Amino acid sequence: MLQTEICLTPIGVIRSPLRETGEAPKQGREGEIEGRLVVDEQYRDAFDGLRPGQRIVILYWLHLADRRRLKVHPRGDRSQPLKGVFATRSPHRPNPIAMSLVEVVQIEETTVTVRGLDALDGTPLLDIKCDLDG
Amino acid sequence: MLQTEICLTPIGVIRSPLRETGEAPKQGREGEIEGRLVVDEQYRDAFDGLRPGQRIVILYWLHLADRRRLKVHPRGDRSQPLKGVFATRSPHRPNPIAMSLVEVVQIEETTVTVRGLDALDGTPLLDIKCDLDG
Repeated sequence: MLQTEICLTPIGVIRSPLRETGEAPKQGREGEIEGRLVVDEQYRDAFDGLRPGQRIVILYWLHLADRRRLKVHPRGDRSQPLKGVFATRSPHRPNPIAMSLVEVVQIEETTVTVRGLDALDGTPLLDIKCDLDG
Repeated sequence: MLQTEICLTPIGVIRSPLRETGEAPKQGREGEIEGRLVVDEQYRDAFDGLRPGQRIVILYWLHLADRRRLKVHPRGDRSQPLKGVFATRSPHRPNPIAMSLVEVVQIEETTVTVRGLDALDGTPLLDIKCDLDG
């Protein structure tokens, strides 16, 4: 029934001042952390029309997540009862893809400076989408 | 610099009344289309805590997308000038992962009936996340 495997190629990497898991804010929108989306040059044409001030949704791969974990303590709080990962926003899940809404500060060729980041430095970037609601 | 390849295993498949691309509504939230997320039994524990009435974000793989296309006419409208895919919500993009906000109607074992779907029948399902804002 299931398609057995899907392969992604990261479009780039996230450069962020966040170096350790504990530093990542729970809600990127509330933080004002700036970082850079360093995208491979082969995707240059895909940036046409992107402007500073726009809000974009980024999808990225949580490379440090435990993909086998199916239950977690919500928000890592061990006083909370275990919950299924599909009922949480835990980074641990079978396909650990995260999404975040950020603001475009500057675009230089295929490097985008963004504000409101909550990803760790070195995180593989999967996609950039325009935020229709923004 | 880039991690070369990331492999995903779909957690299940989306069963939807939408059979052709043209039928998919532009905004899932505005539709009241019901369908089912048929998830593999190995993920049973990951559902613990999920309840009818909750809003969830689903991530799925746009298996019909053209991954090589870097520019598109916005909303498929050929009277519009071409735009880079990262400045749009086009399904065509290097890693065609879509996200959609839906409402849980019913949960039976690892099959979830949801409302507000805009995915085609047979779409590989990648993830289910609780909607914190919902």
